Amino acid sequence: MQTFREHRWKSFLENYQNRARLLISCPDKPGIVAAVTSFLYEQGANIVESSQYSTDPEGGTFFLRIEFDCPQIAVRKQEIESAFQPIAESLQMDWRLRLHNDVKRIAIFVSKAEHCLLELLWQWQAGELIADIALVISNHEHLRNTVESMDIPYFHIPVTKETKAEAEQKQIELLKKYEVDTIVLARYMQILSPSFVAEFPGRIINIHHSFLPAFVGARPYERAYERGVKLIGATSHYVTDDLDEGPIIEQDVARVDHRHHPEDLKRIGRIIEKTVLARALKWHLEDRVIIHGNKTIVFY
Amino acid sequence: MQTFREHRWKSFLENYQNRARLLISCPDKPGIVAAVTSFLYEQGANIVESSQYSTDPEGGTFFLRIEFDCPQIAVRKQEIESAFQPIAESLQMDWRLRLHNDVKRIAIFVSKAEHCLLELLWQWQAGELIADIALVISNHEHLRNTVESMDIPYFHIPVTKETKAEAEQKQIELLKKYEVDTIVLARYMQILSPSFVAEFPGRIINIHHSFLPAFVGARPYERAYERGVKLIGATSHYVTDDLDEGPIIEQDVARVDHRHHPEDLKRIGRIIEKTVLARALKWHLEDRVIIHGNKTIVFY
Amino acid sequence: MQTFREHRWKSFLENYQNRARLLISCPDKPGIVAAVTSFLYEQGANIVESSQYSTDPEGGTFFLRIEFDCPQIAVRKQEIESAFQPIAESLQMDWRLRLHNDVKRIAIFVSKAEHCLLELLWQWQAGELIADIALVISNHEHLRNTVESMDIPYFHIPVTKETKAEAEQKQIELLKKYEVDTIVLARYMQILSPSFVAEFPGRIINIHHSFLPAFVGARPYERAYERGVKLIGATSHYVTDDLDEGPIIEQDVARVDHRHHPEDLKRIGRIIEKTVLARALKWHLEDRVIIHGNKTIVFY
Amino acid sequence: MQTFREHRWKSFLENYQNRARLLISCPDKPGIVAAVTSFLYEQGANIVESSQYSTDPEGGTFFLRIEFDCPQIAVRKQEIESAFQPIAESLQMDWRLRLHNDVKRIAIFVSKAEHCLLELLWQWQAGELIADIALVISNHEHLRNTVESMDIPYFHIPVTKETKAEAEQKQIELLKKYEVDTIVLARYMQILSPSFVAEFPGRIINIHHSFLPAFVGARPYERAYERGVKLIGATSHYVTDDLDEGPIIEQDVARVDHRHHPEDLKRIGRIIEKTVLARALKWHLEDRVIIHGNKTIVFY
Repeated sequence: MQTFREHRWKSFLENYQNRARLLISCPDKPGIVAAVTSFLYEQGANIVESSQYSTDPEGGTFFLRIEFDCPQIAVRKQEIESAFQPIAESLQMDWRLRLHNDVKRIAIFVSKAEHCLLELLWQWQAGELIADIALVISNHEHLRNTVESMDIPYFHIPVTKETKAEAEQKQIELLKKYEVDTIVLARYMQILSPSFVAEFPGRIINIHHSFLPAFVGARPYERAYERGVKLIGATSHYVTDDLDEGPIIEQDVARVDHRHHPEDLKRIGRIIEKTVLARALKWHLEDRVIIHGNKTIVFY
Repeated sequence: MQTFREHRWKSFLENYQNRARLLISCPDKPGIVAAVTSFLYEQGANIVESSQYSTDPEGGTFFLRIEFDCPQIAVRKQEIESAFQPIAESLQMDWRLRLHNDVKRIAIFVSKAEHCLLELLWQWQAGELIADIALVISNHEHLRNTVESMDIPYFHIPVTKETKAEAEQKQIELLKKYEVDTIVLARYMQILSPSFVAEFPGRIINIHHSFLPAFVGARPYERAYERGVKLIGATSHYVTDDLDEGPIIEQDVARVDHRHHPEDLKRIGRIIEKTVLARALKWHLEDRVIIHGNKTIVFY
Repeated sequence: MQTFREHRWKSFLENYQNRARLLISCPDKPGIVAAVTSFLYEQGANIVESSQYSTDPEGGTFFLRIEFDCPQIAVRKQEIESAFQPIAESLQMDWRLRLHNDVKRIAIFVSKAEHCLLELLWQWQAGELIADIALVISNHEHLRNTVESMDIPYFHIPVTKETKAEAEQKQIELLKKYEVDTIVLARYMQILSPSFVAEFPGRIINIHHSFLPAFVGARPYERAYERGVKLIGATSHYVTDDLDEGPIIEQDVARVDHRHHPEDLKRIGRIIEKTVLARALKWHLEDRVIIHGNKTIVFY
Repeated sequence: MQTFREHRWKSFLENYQNRARLLISCPDKPGIVAAVTSFLYEQGANIVESSQYSTDPEGGTFFLRIEFDCPQIAVRKQEIESAFQPIAESLQMDWRLRLHNDVKRIAIFVSKAEHCLLELLWQWQAGELIADIALVISNHEHLRNTVESMDIPYFHIPVTKETKAEAEQKQIELLKKYEVDTIVLARYMQILSPSFVAEFPGRIINIHHSFLPAFVGARPYERAYERGVKLIGATSHYVTDDLDEGPIIEQDVARVDHRHHPEDLKRIGRIIEKTVLARALKWHLEDRVIIHGNKTIVFY
């Protein structure tokens, strides 16, 4: 199967050798789009997708994501960045230029429930999740075979109240050693400490098993059952120090009724959870998600 | 247009002259369905729809709703009720027999926003909402023409902190005078007092403009905007003394994104609100909703 | 109620006096966005929304819709158009500049079923449908009071096989007299002749009561019932000479099951139909829909 | 992982040792439910779920599915069946009594696309798909490792025009040898011959990658792209001799837009396909689906 996946990836990467994305945020004022697109034109780029958003045309923040094809972009990247620097400075831009084929390296954290992990692994095998899965970290041992059979390193790091700080230290070392860009909490049931979160700002994605802000915290399906809601949901969000309060990337729901016990809600919820997480991660990996305060702008 | 509606209703009522519903709740134990269906068979009834639910087969509560056709049911109703009484007593039943054509009388309460009222009026005209709209009560004047043009009485009862008790007294008098069975709060923005609610237990239906229990209370769209949710919703529930905490009948959601300002959320939300309220009311009018504790069983 | 609506509209129009949209389609090549946005910058415009799509970066067609604020746009429109003409010619553009407050005039065609008409009237009253409803034309008489009570002219033009050509002639005369831009077939059950369609290319919007291309033609709910589908839908599309084959603008579905008879499907379908039609019309009125061959590009 | 699954199954089966289902279809007339539920009561059964449907109260067909708990049902099954026989005969019933723990044996047929197979395997491992996966048959070799790693037999049976009859013969032999009850076509891209279908009437479930009856036949995503639809879907149905015309069990859709190329539609469609197939199979395995003519009654 490995060969199958590799074959798909090879053809995928070859199709987009000239593709790159420019990501910009800056104070809104007239002329930004003109300045950026004129620059890209001079560089020989052809814009294939462009998205923009302004919080307020007067005095707000302006966000721009442009995807373009430009011959030789891989070798010319640094040259283009230097040429863009003066424009960026004059317009007070935060900006990044990213190559399409510069695939992000991710770590997946998992506990007992395997459905989110398995969905990501399946999409990765199928060539639908374009990321390097650098490693999987779990506070349990039982998913080792599944993960290692795909040639992905698996690390079992148990966590108790007493060993939490130490465990997180080990995790951070691994994440650095494996040069991880993004951490995916695929139903990882440990709360990360503020110092851990501070190491990866805007780079930890969680799936919460409720339609936030309903049922913040533990046991959401049990509480949904007790409240008698007619829809249950899942929420993928960036992790911040405020539990379940980070910027929401994506949410979805499914219909339930009085016959569903908490176990049924969990079963139905698993389908939503894995789907929502995979969708949010895909957008993140394609640099389509911009964090602005405690909200996200998603250019999908 | 009146004639149009009347024509539809006439044909509707004539089609179901023999239709009735039996609604039962009792302690669960073997033999209930057998006892009830044998009784109905002896009465010459043919069951056309049957729904049941048990909170727990051992020691729980059993709920049953049977819809059946029975010749001459309108004239035989009392006789059948008497014959059923011994069975009901032996099984400790709460029960009701209701004729399909014994249409419920409703009052619609409305404030400034007209979309829910208009949806109900439209469905009523179209023969989709099978109820007698006995009257409309509003704390504003501006919808009088719309309502009265359909020959429905409209009462403007202003409400201020000082006059609230008095206003509710007037409302209750009207509701009694017009023999109202069910009160629909179609975006009525006044909180009803516990004594008002106590007059109509399980008979006041509200539409809350959020996906409860998210954004309980006031200004839900503004708070949804601030939280950056990706779906907004509406909830129809029975009114109890706990604000926005009553048994939920129906909920639904719609997708939104970062571009939507609170005004957009309100606009999108109006479609959900009116649809959800109409659906919940339809089920209530057809005796498909049973309140059990703070939850509902909906046999749709 | 009229005053209510007028009040909303006034505040709406005043908020967007400087808003306009530039709509462009042209052969794709590098530099288009740069040229257009540089031009707008020079004119003092601030871009508030921009959408683009290319059928193929190499040799395809490029579509651009830019919404911008520009002081004095109402009086400067012609001047700006003249200044843009050389750019447009050099890039072989089809293009239009439209003022936000230059509200489109629409005609609604209706037959017996009133739900789509009533939804549009309600949204129009509520200030959600931003259009001038110039007139309503029906081959039946029964909705006259409803329409005229809102001070909208109503024309009853019966259609039979024999009188069809004549009836269409009358319709066209009225549409010209009332300077109608867009025709909405709100469940108008007559097939328009090719010569009628040719008079309003890309300006007639229909709602078909099925999820096209399933159940093309007549009696879609009956056929959906016979086929035993588990979802039913509605489709809003532009009218062309090929019945039910025109470019699709919007579609939606609702869940049904074996218990639903054709009458139930129709009832459920009415909610989808009116919602889908209203959504498609809104996008059309905001110049968000571009017809390309037999498909649409919708910049929502 | 095997142990993980086995653990879940053991606890699952132990919870439902007394659970059984009675499935009945017969000419509708008064008294059926009374007769059946009285019988069950006499046998000491407690009904936990009951669903019924009549195509027409007068002269139609009546369908009944009752789920009940009855002590010692596993050993008493034959005795109860004998006792029920006279009632069944007097009411001209087609009927079956099935034990909850009498898990169905299934075969999965697959070609190149692996997503549906993987979803079923994942749900099976997770204890959500309650079936014995007896074997997997494919006309390709590449999924052998995936399947065999879960201790499920995998048979590679290539199919060409010339070898089709022979290949089907081999398949039928395997299906008989492995005592297969239900065949799941998990994107199996070979058309089965009428004689193969005749061997397993109402026991072959297919997933079609379109929202039937739209895009019957081959290349549905390409044709959906060309038609410019705004929703794509998938349909799970029983296989009959009429290609893509068998009774529909379940359907679902997802939203797409002009930016999606056929490859995107396929990617989005895969999620719908696997979800819809898993849902339809679950209902089938729980005996919730009744075929009636060319439609299904689904008691979910």
